Amino acid sequence: MTTLEDYLGKNAERMDKVINRYFGDLHGDLFKASAHLLLAGGKRLRPAVVILSADAVKSGSSDDLLPAALALELTHNFTLIHDDIMDGDVTRRGVPTVHTVWGEPTAILAGDVLYAKAFEFICLSDAADIAKVRATTMLARTCTDICDGQSMDIAFETKDDVSEMEYLEMVSKKTGVLYGAAAAIGGILAGANTVQADALYQFGVNSGVAFQIQDDLIDLYASSEKSGKDQASDIREGKQTLIAIKAREKGLDLSSYRRKLTATEIADVITLLEDAGIIDEVRAIAVERATVAKEALSILPDTEERRLLGEIADFFIDRSF
Amino acid sequence: MTTLEDYLGKNAERMDKVINRYFGDLHGDLFKASAHLLLAGGKRLRPAVVILSADAVKSGSSDDLLPAALALELTHNFTLIHDDIMDGDVTRRGVPTVHTVWGEPTAILAGDVLYAKAFEFICLSDAADIAKVRATTMLARTCTDICDGQSMDIAFETKDDVSEMEYLEMVSKKTGVLYGAAAAIGGILAGANTVQADALYQFGVNSGVAFQIQDDLIDLYASSEKSGKDQASDIREGKQTLIAIKAREKGLDLSSYRRKLTATEIADVITLLEDAGIIDEVRAIAVERATVAKEALSILPDTEERRLLGEIADFFIDRSF
Repeated sequence: MTTLEDYLGKNAERMDKVINRYFGDLHGDLFKASAHLLLAGGKRLRPAVVILSADAVKSGSSDDLLPAALALELTHNFTLIHDDIMDGDVTRRGVPTVHTVWGEPTAILAGDVLYAKAFEFICLSDAADIAKVRATTMLARTCTDICDGQSMDIAFETKDDVSEMEYLEMVSKKTGVLYGAAAAIGGILAGANTVQADALYQFGVNSGVAFQIQDDLIDLYASSEKSGKDQASDIREGKQTLIAIKAREKGLDLSSYRRKLTATEIADVITLLEDAGIIDEVRAIAVERATVAKEALSILPDTEERRLLGEIADFFIDRSF
Repeated sequence: MTTLEDYLGKNAERMDKVINRYFGDLHGDLFKASAHLLLAGGKRLRPAVVILSADAVKSGSSDDLLPAALALELTHNFTLIHDDIMDGDVTRRGVPTVHTVWGEPTAILAGDVLYAKAFEFICLSDAADIAKVRATTMLARTCTDICDGQSMDIAFETKDDVSEMEYLEMVSKKTGVLYGAAAAIGGILAGANTVQADALYQFGVNSGVAFQIQDDLIDLYASSEKSGKDQASDIREGKQTLIAIKAREKGLDLSSYRRKLTATEIADVITLLEDAGIIDEVRAIAVERATVAKEALSILPDTEERRLLGEIADFFIDRSF
């Protein structure tokens, strides 16, 4: 029985090879810029979801779907390049962001190139034409949703009354739908019917939301040494996470923590949030989303691939960094 | 017999209605921003080329291709929004540019939304699935080329030794290929075979290059009152147009004109360029491209639509603003 860790490791190796073949030796600033983050590594989780979903629908069908798996990674990377410009972030995956190296105009274009390549690679997959048209439509609608999610996220920066529902819509669009599309597109290209494709989409969206909520918890709990990021940066920046929203709804004022925090102060705010039951509630929502994700898979045949997809949902909420 | 002017007028009216239906009443900053330039008008030339090309391949086939025609207009508008950010332009089509109104982050996302919608609308057309896959692939490759063209254009700003060949490659990618895609996609969705699709692509690319060269001539000759743009702005900014490149190759130094110019000085530089034979040469290249474009159409049946496509190529080099 393959463990998820082994599976993801082998998948990342395989995707790295595919990425190297297409993006490892490009000429000119624009194409080098578009390959920059892709070549900086990553867990290749979305390609793994594409391939597992295809095989969960029809055993062995993923053999010719590497281009589609790559398409989802390209879409993810295009959004990272554009988001980094908007957010003014200077490093990602341990390397300088694209606009930091090549400037904003080339970074905008580099994202646009990956965007085009994503659609091109969906069509390069070995699948029925009707399936490619469905997959293309799904990818297009997903990209619109992602833009909407990022736009909401930017708007949240100047709002202090974001509701739990608004937060969940934002993370569903910003993070969830691309996992939903990865699962559904894998299934569709393998010949999934509408019910199966919908189930895979629900699996992906809910897993993605769980992933993002866990990310917020990790920001609070993981030490800088462990995560490579500033601990409790969301609290310090007053970010509207599910934790902050629930705290506000319970009348807990975190505004005094919007500044550089010592380790003791971080421990204090964690105790405050735990004592108010907020951490348990947030954690429960992540667990619930992962459960909904796994339940959606129940209409698929009981296979190794279905099991691994379920384990991905569990992994998303169990990871500690 | 329909005149081209009548045809384009009716086409623009029809496209305006379609655009209004889909983009006229959107909610939220992001979607309003994405609709902004679309609703500011335009000649809708690319949709006209899609529809005429479809009907030139198969009479009456364009009836269900309005979504595809719109897709090409969306692609054009997405590039305008992103280009305006890169170039720092503040007005377009008589309205403030998207980033001027909504800021750069929303403008980047607004372009990204139109980009997604373009692919979605190709797939919404009533055509065979195999044709939609071919059309999607063509649109994706075209978008990559357009990014490459814009990237070259930006690089030209800091080069003073751009060759005629480099210039022609740049305009072919920045302007030509989208007309090529418009023609080929119209044909493909109407059931064109490879030879017909290639011919339509060549028609479009060459027409688009002719269009751009004529644009450079218009910049030099058209008064501000007539064109709404600064006369001779390319000369003033030292832009690497075909005119400037040919002047340099003939040892003509235009660098003393890189400043605000009076009407008399503009007349002087025009005389200088005309006397050196440069204007005739540039004009001849535009005419040649339009001729190549029209010749490419000769493999199609002799129809009203083929005639109108040919007239579009002529219009591109005959227009004076």
